[in-house]
Amino acid sequence: MNDADLEVHYRRYLDCLNDRRIDELDEFVHEDLVYNGEPETRADYRDRIAESIAAIPDLRYEARLIVVQGDRVACRLLFECTPQSEWLGLQPTGASISFSEHIFYGFREGRIHEAWSLVDVPAIEAQLAP
Amino acid sequence: MNDADLEVHYRRYLDCLNDRRIDELDEFVHEDLVYNGEPETRADYRDRIAESIAAIPDLRYEARLIVVQGDRVACRLLFECTPQSEWLGLQPTGASISFSEHIFYGFREGRIHEAWSLVDVPAIEAQLAP
Repeated sequence: MNDADLEVHYRRYLDCLNDRRIDELDEFVHEDLVYNGEPETRADYRDRIAESIAAIPDLRYEARLIVVQGDRVACRLLFECTPQSEWLGLQPTGASISFSEHIFYGFREGRIHEAWSLVDVPAIEAQLAP
Repeated sequence: MNDADLEVHYRRYLDCLNDRRIDELDEFVHEDLVYNGEPETRADYRDRIAESIAAIPDLRYEARLIVVQGDRVACRLLFECTPQSEWLGLQPTGASISFSEHIFYGFREGRIHEAWSLVDVPAIEAQLAP
């Protein structure tokens, strides 16, 4: 895949998440990968997303910036959502929140084998303050 | 500049910071820019870096991942350092800390005119806990 193709592929991955087709991740994620420096399986990866979606039914992965070079993708994601149950150890307040995630991926043969994610947790905490 | 040239240019910017030549930022940063969605001047940008360096004399900008496409640069920076005075509202404990920053830049004519930064503040807080 060239850079343009990989961006299209990555956007299809985000569509997959937004359409809640999280049992189709084998198209986008390797069976074994490294997430934030720790080994994990595709099932672990799927479960993390499933937990987020369960706590935040209206969670929508919106790409604000995508940078693609070779087998690397960097994305600034913006989330605007309303948590309904505990998430990241924080209780929902009924408030709608907005926060970003900056994530770097390594792809191999079209599938994610490495990811480094930073979520703006302080922004979430501030917006869910009692 | 093509992507390879922009990466070289960006690495020279990091060298500039690491060599503490922060009065030479006009080569890399526009006079007016947008930082995390807010307008600021090059002087503001410089002052933020100066404050970090003052609090953390051994602060070193180490690029772990760089992704370049067109006029965009995304970088995962890793910092391993020992804060000596208050920084981000946190008191130094004498502990050495390690944390990452994921930052996206928009370049125009070879100079930064936009940046979106996420610093792993929870990791810093955990390592500077009393």
